[in-house]
Amino acid sequence: MDFITFIDYIGTFAFAISGIRLASAKRFDWFGAYVVGFVTAVGGGTLRDLLLDVPPFWMRNISYLIVSGFALLFVVCLRNYVIRLKNTFFIFDAIGLGLFTVVGIEKSVAAGYPMWVGIIMGTLTGAFGGMLRDVLINEVPLIFRKDIYAIACVCGGVIYYVSLACDLPASATQTVTAVSVILIRILAVRFGISLPALKGELIPEKPQK
Amino acid sequence: MDFITFIDYIGTFAFAISGIRLASAKRFDWFGAYVVGFVTAVGGGTLRDLLLDVPPFWMRNISYLIVSGFALLFVVCLRNYVIRLKNTFFIFDAIGLGLFTVVGIEKSVAAGYPMWVGIIMGTLTGAFGGMLRDVLINEVPLIFRKDIYAIACVCGGVIYYVSLACDLPASATQTVTAVSVILIRILAVRFGISLPALKGELIPEKPQK
Amino acid sequence: MDFITFIDYIGTFAFAISGIRLASAKRFDWFGAYVVGFVTAVGGGTLRDLLLDVPPFWMRNISYLIVSGFALLFVVCLRNYVIRLKNTFFIFDAIGLGLFTVVGIEKSVAAGYPMWVGIIMGTLTGAFGGMLRDVLINEVPLIFRKDIYAIACVCGGVIYYVSLACDLPASATQTVTAVSVILIRILAVRFGISLPALKGELIPEKPQK
Repeated sequence: MDFITFIDYIGTFAFAISGIRLASAKRFDWFGAYVVGFVTAVGGGTLRDLLLDVPPFWMRNISYLIVSGFALLFVVCLRNYVIRLKNTFFIFDAIGLGLFTVVGIEKSVAAGYPMWVGIIMGTLTGAFGGMLRDVLINEVPLIFRKDIYAIACVCGGVIYYVSLACDLPASATQTVTAVSVILIRILAVRFGISLPALKGELIPEKPQK
Repeated sequence: MDFITFIDYIGTFAFAISGIRLASAKRFDWFGAYVVGFVTAVGGGTLRDLLLDVPPFWMRNISYLIVSGFALLFVVCLRNYVIRLKNTFFIFDAIGLGLFTVVGIEKSVAAGYPMWVGIIMGTLTGAFGGMLRDVLINEVPLIFRKDIYAIACVCGGVIYYVSLACDLPASATQTVTAVSVILIRILAVRFGISLPALKGELIPEKPQK
Repeated sequence: MDFITFIDYIGTFAFAISGIRLASAKRFDWFGAYVVGFVTAVGGGTLRDLLLDVPPFWMRNISYLIVSGFALLFVVCLRNYVIRLKNTFFIFDAIGLGLFTVVGIEKSVAAGYPMWVGIIMGTLTGAFGGMLRDVLINEVPLIFRKDIYAIACVCGGVIYYVSLACDLPASATQTVTAVSVILIRILAVRFGISLPALKGELIPEKPQK
């Protein structure tokens, strides 16, 4: 298992934990919680692969199912520990976000799409799983309202593009991108930075669809 | 029309009825109810076909649209009858679940995927339509919280695998699998068996993501 | 830029505006609102392209992203103006609906599918984006309960089919279809026509899924 694979599993684990914790707060049974955890972890990459018309990555490799299973075990057995570890999970989650973004960009570019599609796919890979999770537990998706999350992936995508344009070697581009996403995410939460909400107008009596 | 096709339509009918009834409880108009019914019936198979990268089954055969139409007619014309028939529909639904599981497994194996993907696809085929239904009517998906439902499909998948390993002929494997799913489902509801819920922790003030 | 492309962008703009307005009413941040607007505009066509197994249209042409960006700018800068313009947007939206329906039908027929699949794809292209929007903002989808919306696309599809059967030339068929959808939509809202709701039964204590 090389380093990238290791990071990939760490990210999957952290994403699955976040899904399982929110599902358990809604009193899902353990199978439902497992499904929500798995969907949180692989949902973004699955949509990406469907859009790029390549086989969904987790259907070629059973590890993602297994890692999600460990995440379930972990939450069930070490509930109190999980709460105390929340800063650790936050870091894992940010690392996963950074790596997933890079994977998403590279898969799109490999499929022959231009850079702007890569940026979207990187963002999808990182952030869509969390959105699916919120739809499944019937909440308004958090990523649309809190903190800097998806936008960190977008920034990472732009940085990837700039690095390429500056003729950085592939491995440097990947590292710079992932680290930027991770830093933006951590700094945003650390300093409570979020995007301004749009001022809500009253919903008109008859929304025009 | 052979026996399998007949069972397939019975399952489709039962799934569509369940979607239409829940939609009507939410005061959907009849077109909306029809859509929810159709999605409940074909949603699982559609996601399966998208993931396997084969053409969605209902786009090759208009019968599923028509069967869903009959389900709508049935609910509209025989409302009180439908309520009294609820045990019949429950049995139909269980039969559909068993058959859909087998279809899902076989399509995946035919597409060259390993058995564990087959188990997932069988479960998706059986249970994902009901989950989509609950998302459409804006409820927390029932299958994550009540009774044994998706897990019956998972058990069926394992039984399919064991039967194959025991060199049972194809038709026996199919029958054993479908019957197991149906029995597990019926017994679970009959005896009120469900998976334990995860103990919900309080959602932290600032969920990570 | 030819006339069809122009209409296409007008429709995209109107759909994006509707998504952004409803997202802002739910206090989404501007990035979230942009995503909801973009999904409202391209969601229907994306599902259509996935089902037809062709590359999603917006991944080949950055214009849809940009038009959605203008829609965001428009809502942010001209909030009060947007509210006053609601009748204009309603017309734009209806025009988009008509055009999207035609595009959906033609793409399906071009992919070798029969007419009834075309009607479904036309309806999906027109109406599914709005449904996704409502799922994202965690509301029961409006299109299932209010006004004539998706059903206008279905009628358009039938009219397309009849026009073809009458040997109308392609451009006449397209025009007749689009205009019918637009008129049906406008007249339905003007005269408050909607489909009857199904009489809701009480949801039984234990819904049979």
